[in-house]
Amino acid sequence: QPIFIMRGKFSGFLLVPQIIFIVLYGVFVQYDVQAGPRNASDTTSSEHFDKLYPMFQDVHVMIFIGFGFLMTFLRRYGFGSVGFNFMLAAFVIQWTILIRGCLDLEDIKDGKININLETFLNADFACGAVLISFGAVLGVLGPIQLIVMAILEVVFYSVNEFVIAHKFQISDIGGSMVIHTFGAYFGLAVSLVHWRPELKDAHPKEESVYHSDLFAMIGTLFLWLYWPSFNGAPAAGTIIGERAVINTLFSLAAAGVSAFAMSSIVDKSGKISMVHVQNATLAGGVAAGAVANLKIGPLGATLLGSSSGILSVLGYAYITPAILQHMNIHDTCGVHNLHGMPGVLSGVAAVIIAKATSPTTQQANLQLAGLAVTLGISIIGGLLTGLVLKAPFLGSVKHQDLFDDRPYWNV
Amino acid sequence: QPIFIMRGKFSGFLLVPQIIFIVLYGVFVQYDVQAGPRNASDTTSSEHFDKLYPMFQDVHVMIFIGFGFLMTFLRRYGFGSVGFNFMLAAFVIQWTILIRGCLDLEDIKDGKININLETFLNADFACGAVLISFGAVLGVLGPIQLIVMAILEVVFYSVNEFVIAHKFQISDIGGSMVIHTFGAYFGLAVSLVHWRPELKDAHPKEESVYHSDLFAMIGTLFLWLYWPSFNGAPAAGTIIGERAVINTLFSLAAAGVSAFAMSSIVDKSGKISMVHVQNATLAGGVAAGAVANLKIGPLGATLLGSSSGILSVLGYAYITPAILQHMNIHDTCGVHNLHGMPGVLSGVAAVIIAKATSPTTQQANLQLAGLAVTLGISIIGGLLTGLVLKAPFLGSVKHQDLFDDRPYWNV
Amino acid sequence: QPIFIMRGKFSGFLLVPQIIFIVLYGVFVQYDVQAGPRNASDTTSSEHFDKLYPMFQDVHVMIFIGFGFLMTFLRRYGFGSVGFNFMLAAFVIQWTILIRGCLDLEDIKDGKININLETFLNADFACGAVLISFGAVLGVLGPIQLIVMAILEVVFYSVNEFVIAHKFQISDIGGSMVIHTFGAYFGLAVSLVHWRPELKDAHPKEESVYHSDLFAMIGTLFLWLYWPSFNGAPAAGTIIGERAVINTLFSLAAAGVSAFAMSSIVDKSGKISMVHVQNATLAGGVAAGAVANLKIGPLGATLLGSSSGILSVLGYAYITPAILQHMNIHDTCGVHNLHGMPGVLSGVAAVIIAKATSPTTQQANLQLAGLAVTLGISIIGGLLTGLVLKAPFLGSVKHQDLFDDRPYWNV
Repeated sequence: QPIFIMRGKFSGFLLVPQIIFIVLYGVFVQYDVQAGPRNASDTTSSEHFDKLYPMFQDVHVMIFIGFGFLMTFLRRYGFGSVGFNFMLAAFVIQWTILIRGCLDLEDIKDGKININLETFLNADFACGAVLISFGAVLGVLGPIQLIVMAILEVVFYSVNEFVIAHKFQISDIGGSMVIHTFGAYFGLAVSLVHWRPELKDAHPKEESVYHSDLFAMIGTLFLWLYWPSFNGAPAAGTIIGERAVINTLFSLAAAGVSAFAMSSIVDKSGKISMVHVQNATLAGGVAAGAVANLKIGPLGATLLGSSSGILSVLGYAYITPAILQHMNIHDTCGVHNLHGMPGVLSGVAAVIIAKATSPTTQQANLQLAGLAVTLGISIIGGLLTGLVLKAPFLGSVKHQDLFDDRPYWNV
Repeated sequence: QPIFIMRGKFSGFLLVPQIIFIVLYGVFVQYDVQAGPRNASDTTSSEHFDKLYPMFQDVHVMIFIGFGFLMTFLRRYGFGSVGFNFMLAAFVIQWTILIRGCLDLEDIKDGKININLETFLNADFACGAVLISFGAVLGVLGPIQLIVMAILEVVFYSVNEFVIAHKFQISDIGGSMVIHTFGAYFGLAVSLVHWRPELKDAHPKEESVYHSDLFAMIGTLFLWLYWPSFNGAPAAGTIIGERAVINTLFSLAAAGVSAFAMSSIVDKSGKISMVHVQNATLAGGVAAGAVANLKIGPLGATLLGSSSGILSVLGYAYITPAILQHMNIHDTCGVHNLHGMPGVLSGVAAVIIAKATSPTTQQANLQLAGLAVTLGISIIGGLLTGLVLKAPFLGSVKHQDLFDDRPYWNV
Repeated sequence: QPIFIMRGKFSGFLLVPQIIFIVLYGVFVQYDVQAGPRNASDTTSSEHFDKLYPMFQDVHVMIFIGFGFLMTFLRRYGFGSVGFNFMLAAFVIQWTILIRGCLDLEDIKDGKININLETFLNADFACGAVLISFGAVLGVLGPIQLIVMAILEVVFYSVNEFVIAHKFQISDIGGSMVIHTFGAYFGLAVSLVHWRPELKDAHPKEESVYHSDLFAMIGTLFLWLYWPSFNGAPAAGTIIGERAVINTLFSLAAAGVSAFAMSSIVDKSGKISMVHVQNATLAGGVAAGAVANLKIGPLGATLLGSSSGILSVLGYAYITPAILQHMNIHDTCGVHNLHGMPGVLSGVAAVIIAKATSPTTQQANLQLAGLAVTLGISIIGGLLTGLVLKAPFLGSVKHQDLFDDRPYWNV
């Protein structure tokens, strides 16, 4: 019974880590502002913070409003979508700081992790990956399983980031590989392990209603509007950041137009589908991610954006059903179409650009290796995590409770 | 049948221009950041960008969330409101850059259009005009007609901007004439041409339901909150921009209070109407537009805001029904009350202020000429565009499909 | 009959003050930018404005979207929640500027109030207090009563601010005492005076439906996301502001996780309650308020956040029902749990920190005195205001009209 699954156990899976976070923060974490020259005068302005903060807030909105409401399209899983999204992100922010600190991905001084606004930006990026994976298994995994998935995924995510960003030094300003490709294939791998034959046929609750589609558009539009900040924030305050913003603006506009056009093409009566408008329009942000800081030009940006919008709609129309039928992978939000394929497209674009602009260096090979490592770690990590989530005391969801808020929420 | 209207044709009207955009971008468009002294070092900070970006993002939210959700008040046209709004804006952003470039309204170097964040700000402003016109014909024109309307309107819009802003050098920081007056009267002229007698009687689908009115409030509030950025962004980073923000804040607060008061006055039972709260509260932003950068003082700003809130409610209560009954113009969102009359009010205020503060110059006459030219180009442009949209292959909407998503969307 | 209550009278209670505002603005208010050295050149950049503006806009969103939508959880009072919230805030912004000017809390030059962006930030903060009180009596007071409450509350609010911030010089950067504690206890005192026995039993309209809970989440998430700006804005552009942001980010994340955990614990079947997710997650912002600028460290911030999340859920589960049953105080939104107790917690934390870090000064005593004065003025002010609102011509709400939009709105 869901009552026994949730009662006590669920709270323990949140509170025990929360206590550990607090203790470890006391021992290992300090403000960046407490140390160094910036401490000399507390009233001196904090230049970098002021430039990053508006972009950070945009990213923050994407994580909590964007991802949260995008997933409210299901008619009976609105609380779970926006609620578990909130819970997971608040949890992952705190957890990521510690794990990235362990891997030297944070700024370490005197054996302590130095916290500044970039720490939270990077934590939000990790949330992005976890919430993408959540989208693949939306309504299929229970809340305790989701917490355990988040705990494990952050570790694999950070290891992958350590390898490809820190060691290979690949170019991926918007995290198309680190965040989007990783999050999508990790989630799909988890979903494969949690395959159940009932998912092959359309579940009566796995559908939207009129108002749930409008709620989802709140998520879509804030993601679309603030994506330039997502791709530009790592270079906030520099011309590189400005270029990342402008490339992403072009790519998103082109993806928007292309997604509408393709949505009508793939429908036998020529009608537009909200699922395409909600998702494929955003593929332009993912596709620009790995190359947004480069001089791809308005031509390159709009070409990439249009391609990704088309690719994403084709994915929803043909690839997701095929994966469901033939590979036994259920992908509730179609993250493969919004994050997976556009992320790989962006990674491949980065390889081609590196080849073209720096033919004498190893950059193109490193970019390709980075993409391969991301796919490898995400898929293996997702499979292993999926197996762990099979543990019976983590409370798997019964068939009649799939895509339903009622077992977990007072409705 | 709507099936044949949409299928193929709709996609062609999006994809062919999109391909043209991409090609022309390749030939005629380049980054501003690629040329000039700012290219010397890619890591130098981009000062102006950093000051403009937060205001730009506010404007961006107004265009896509603000206009999009404001129009979701119709009970069966929520997908069309927020969806076609999205489609048109993504399209118009790309198209405007080219047209404004042709008219030398963009920064041209070496025969190429130089792109920076201000290019996108100006493109968003053009979206504003098109989306206001969309509001006049919401639910009455089909999607292909809307795309063609947008293509033509951007041309008339840019010609008008060229004449009054570039040649006459009028003062209109917030675009009360260039954007709001233009968009409203253009849309009303299109609506006049597309008059059909059935619109005289209340259509059963032309009404709101409880939840659709709450969705519309999302649009209203983001418009109201971010309007100071709309009026201030063209002078971002200067004291003029600061003054524009502060004047607009005063004007909006006064319009908000006045709109609530008037809404109850014009109702026979003294109740408040959501349509007034959703729209007339925003008139203060339009009314401040042409004079927001001037020293109108808190007195002038609140006076203008209050007047516009009152005027707008009176428009909804008495003028829109009269225009419908006697002039055969149907105005779905009442753009005449929110954008038309307050825009003219702002234009007249600018004439009076120019007369008072610069009596020896031609400024007042130019302001008046600018207002007249705007009315002329918008009405003539709207009439011509309306005639073009009569072409049968553009798919006019059948009576039973008015204000309804179902012919165009998979609901 | 509600018809006679609203008709004319309601509009008069808005328009007469609005006219007074305009007149007084003409006589006593001027731009800061019109005077002083910044007037020398209108094109010089306005540095402080540029740093404050993004944070101000976040606070602005919190007041109008955050508070407004948070209260839409009631199934039949959505228009009143987001609509009266809008009306009151637009009114209070204008009124606060004058009252704070009278008390020398604004920048006064040559006998005039100098307006800049900080004036509006402080006006938004006063809105916060009024809207918290509104939350305590949501659906119980009529619109004329609400306007009168706002008029009086701003006076008490400003007197309290004058005493504790101006005279005692207490530390309260995020207004945990000045705004949250004050607003909560003022509202509870008004509610006590307006007690009616029917409120003891659950009113059939005092409940949420599925979609109204999703609308409320829009409010929750924007409050949660932008709270760092609320606590940091008074020190925008300095390292103190940066620290306030970072402490608040930690506190909110911890409160989010703890609120989910506790929500399941207090439910007999272990399910999560939306009312806790919507409100208790935000307690971390309030709890950080009085100490956000201090070096409480990640440990202190997460400890404070977790405690407040737990405290707030316990409040909803046990204290609100007890206050209702035994003290005859009805608290529609549970502001005691979200603003009252976490505000006091933050005030006590400030006392402890002052004692620990400045044991030789009077700071700890002043902080404690500030908390006591806030409780005193808010409760006495609320009781007096509640009595005034009993005046029969202010239109009290009939039992059948409680928590219902229909008497006041054209639904």
